[in-house]
Amino acid sequence: MTMHYPLLVPSILNRARTAFPSKEIITRLEGAEGGVHRYTYREMAARVNRLCNALNFLGVKQGDRVGTFAWNTYRHLEAYFASPVMGAVNHTINIRLFPDDLVYIVNHAQDKVIFVDPDLCPILEALAPRLESVEHYVILTDDPEPATTLPNAVSYESLLAQASDQFTPPEMDEWDPAGLCYTSATTGRPKGVTYSHRALYLHSMAECMADTAAFSERDTTMAVVPMFHANCWGFPYSSALVGASQVMPGVRPDPQAICELIDRHRVTVTAGVPTIWVGVLDYLERSGQSYDFSSLRAVISGGSAVPVSVIRAYKERLGVDLVHAYGMTEATPIVTYNRVKTHLEDLPEDEKYELAGSQGMVVAGLEMRLVDDEGNDLPWDGEQRGELLFRGPWISREYYNDERTAETYIDGWYHSGDIASVDPDGYVQIGDRVKDMVKSGGEWISSVDLETAIIAHPDVLEAAVIAIPHPTWVERPLACVVPREGARESLDKAQVMDFIRDRFARWWLPDDVVFIEEIPKTSVGKFDKKVLRERYQDYVVGG
Amino acid sequence: MTMHYPLLVPSILNRARTAFPSKEIITRLEGAEGGVHRYTYREMAARVNRLCNALNFLGVKQGDRVGTFAWNTYRHLEAYFASPVMGAVNHTINIRLFPDDLVYIVNHAQDKVIFVDPDLCPILEALAPRLESVEHYVILTDDPEPATTLPNAVSYESLLAQASDQFTPPEMDEWDPAGLCYTSATTGRPKGVTYSHRALYLHSMAECMADTAAFSERDTTMAVVPMFHANCWGFPYSSALVGASQVMPGVRPDPQAICELIDRHRVTVTAGVPTIWVGVLDYLERSGQSYDFSSLRAVISGGSAVPVSVIRAYKERLGVDLVHAYGMTEATPIVTYNRVKTHLEDLPEDEKYELAGSQGMVVAGLEMRLVDDEGNDLPWDGEQRGELLFRGPWISREYYNDERTAETYIDGWYHSGDIASVDPDGYVQIGDRVKDMVKSGGEWISSVDLETAIIAHPDVLEAAVIAIPHPTWVERPLACVVPREGARESLDKAQVMDFIRDRFARWWLPDDVVFIEEIPKTSVGKFDKKVLRERYQDYVVGG
Repeated sequence: MTMHYPLLVPSILNRARTAFPSKEIITRLEGAEGGVHRYTYREMAARVNRLCNALNFLGVKQGDRVGTFAWNTYRHLEAYFASPVMGAVNHTINIRLFPDDLVYIVNHAQDKVIFVDPDLCPILEALAPRLESVEHYVILTDDPEPATTLPNAVSYESLLAQASDQFTPPEMDEWDPAGLCYTSATTGRPKGVTYSHRALYLHSMAECMADTAAFSERDTTMAVVPMFHANCWGFPYSSALVGASQVMPGVRPDPQAICELIDRHRVTVTAGVPTIWVGVLDYLERSGQSYDFSSLRAVISGGSAVPVSVIRAYKERLGVDLVHAYGMTEATPIVTYNRVKTHLEDLPEDEKYELAGSQGMVVAGLEMRLVDDEGNDLPWDGEQRGELLFRGPWISREYYNDERTAETYIDGWYHSGDIASVDPDGYVQIGDRVKDMVKSGGEWISSVDLETAIIAHPDVLEAAVIAIPHPTWVERPLACVVPREGARESLDKAQVMDFIRDRFARWWLPDDVVFIEEIPKTSVGKFDKKVLRERYQDYVVGG
Repeated sequence: MTMHYPLLVPSILNRARTAFPSKEIITRLEGAEGGVHRYTYREMAARVNRLCNALNFLGVKQGDRVGTFAWNTYRHLEAYFASPVMGAVNHTINIRLFPDDLVYIVNHAQDKVIFVDPDLCPILEALAPRLESVEHYVILTDDPEPATTLPNAVSYESLLAQASDQFTPPEMDEWDPAGLCYTSATTGRPKGVTYSHRALYLHSMAECMADTAAFSERDTTMAVVPMFHANCWGFPYSSALVGASQVMPGVRPDPQAICELIDRHRVTVTAGVPTIWVGVLDYLERSGQSYDFSSLRAVISGGSAVPVSVIRAYKERLGVDLVHAYGMTEATPIVTYNRVKTHLEDLPEDEKYELAGSQGMVVAGLEMRLVDDEGNDLPWDGEQRGELLFRGPWISREYYNDERTAETYIDGWYHSGDIASVDPDGYVQIGDRVKDMVKSGGEWISSVDLETAIIAHPDVLEAAVIAIPHPTWVERPLACVVPREGARESLDKAQVMDFIRDRFARWWLPDDVVFIEEIPKTSVGKFDKKVLRERYQDYVVGG
């Protein structure tokens, strides 16, 4: 009697098919008519059914992982739906991972099938002998005989052509896994995060709430963020749930392609990392081209902090709201979204831009805590810094088959590793990652704050501040500075220290400055402070 | 590890308290400063904690039912939260029920405590000896010695003053009951519907989605619909979830009070039955008063169909969107909401008003079917009529301890009893209740359509069309007509039949017309066709 109505991905597809059958999915496709492939949710749903039958045919069982190694296209979108609709798990693989990490995650996930875009085949061909679990590679092409050395390769369109477009999803529980995404750890192998049907469904509802991203039937959404990044920030499912049109930027979208898609297809909401939006600004300046961006109601920026200057440039030069959001693979991924509360609307312009530069408020549905390093709650006073903890219906509870779960998920709370302050209105301002903070005499010093100050010096190209051991204070900050070309001989320690001296409490100032050739970087281009910390672990100030 | 994060009402309160502590709840209160009581979510949350402790003190245990018999006020809102937060069930009792029904539902629900507004005490005083389960009546007043003959009566404010404002909710499951509401059946006793924490939470998220009512922090909501009607259409919980300000219209709000509250407190969204909105229009015309309604973005009308003429009057005379929604107690209650799809925006004005007069589309999250009387799915072609069936996360699965469950909940689908057509865009147009349809020779005839046509005759005051038995066709329509004053002698059958003859297929036309003094009505003012069917069960045409 109290029969359970589960929250399932198939219901999202069903909503798009029945309520918005003629809304379109438009994929950038060079050489196609108008430069795009376009079809409707009705057609998509029929092809998803075919794909479900095809996966059955390939031997995929309920609970099996099905990998994708692909750009943002309608075929990738079909895989996003088909795997969970037929009971399997949609495992989106980052095409930019180092080969050893790729091998690790495919084997760790035990992917049974992988969908691969044709131009990405060479990457997997080199690794195929080491990918133990993969039984079939499905090449995302209409070429019936795709040219690849991948074993058991099959053409996507040939596969679909053979399959029926009628499919009934199996019995599923909302706690069953539907998605899987690995997050690149800066230490050790990537860690996998499983998304349940329930988490994906609730995240979609939350994203469509008026005070989150407010996805609507009126929208044309475009995820520039790759579909292999953290559930594509929810775009594929949230858009389908409300019948928004979707624009998919296809293979290797550059700033010009992004601008053209926004202009031609009247995109209303788009999203990507700050690098993308800085690149678009830069392209517009260099090219002198102009585009019609009047359809855009929000450009969502996430993945790392976006400078206030960029937010300001978008508003003042393009008339576009660049909206800061914050999240992580472990959170499906949205945890905060930046909207101005009504009582803050009359702030002076500069303060409003500062507010827009924060990560925004935790979204409805989630709980957030700010804690010190002993786990005590800190006040939301805009001053005190602590680690952000989250829990809620779309926050994961573990890493997939990974012992590192215990380090991150404690007493039901996900420990983000992000250090932030929270103001009395709930706006989050993120500083460092926990492991990048300097803990001096029991007090935290922000390496990011020091770096930002040092980089402002005209003769400095890059700067990284790390903790070095200290007999009294346990840790003290050391500044590693890369001078600009032409200043390599002239820039000295005193100039750097003098430049930042008045901006920090005395005990925050670095104990020393070292000049280096370049800052070591990780595979995704972030500072690799682990390498620096190892290099300077025995550093003696003035030694 | 895969620890469950349940969807609970306490999380909604927690959201309002932590993210929107200074947003206000404003209650119309005659004699108070500015004519209102006002306080913040922070203050409300502290008082809810006090009330939780007070309920514990009164012996309320997890799962117990706590009744409310009250107007829309901040104290009623506190009860809405406190009962589910402390693990009990918030049972909102319709203050307008007939005495025997009141006795029935209080005893059936086994309410342990009832919150009563002072002016409503006399109603319960007369019934108290028959209310077997009630151990305490809490009078919603700050008078420490409320004047009532109710046994074990206690003052609400005295109770709160003694209680601590610190409270930790007990362990709960999201499937636990949190709310209870009885729906008045036209036959038999009222039927109870239980709302789980999960259903209330998901209904709140859905109501805040951009394409549903889009509740937002920017809103000031005002439920004119009584808090004892079908979960108050979600207003108390949805508003708190997003930190919207809430205006509560207090004791016996009349059209003037409603207009003043909208004007003074800049209400953005309000909701009520059509009678309310027709009354407001009428008041504005009669009084010649004018109010500032520019803050209003939506006046939601539900409970019964609203004439297109009223929607048009709101738009043209007041510049306000009157939005048609449809739901029922069994559905927490929202099932459809009327928004114009983008591709329909260019319709001619008249067609747009016709569309606005429909019930709108089924909201995201729910599934809808249109079926014939054998349960076969009918096409959504805007023509064929069938019964609407619903299922989804906030559609109830049973009546509370009631054998009538089996008549309404079949194979996981709630059978609404409403007959409608659905157009290809998914817009629902409701005609009759199933039991009011005439089934002639296997085909359905809409009594509502015939009534609407007959009532348009200038000499007709009211008309009800019912089914009478027929040897060949099983049923045939009979028109029961009440002439206007002054036309009692002149109006005859032929005039009525001639007036509607060209508007219907011949087999739809009533077999006969009878003239009566008045149409019998139910307790809530609806036509009581059951009485008419009994009266005319042996009627012979022309006999």
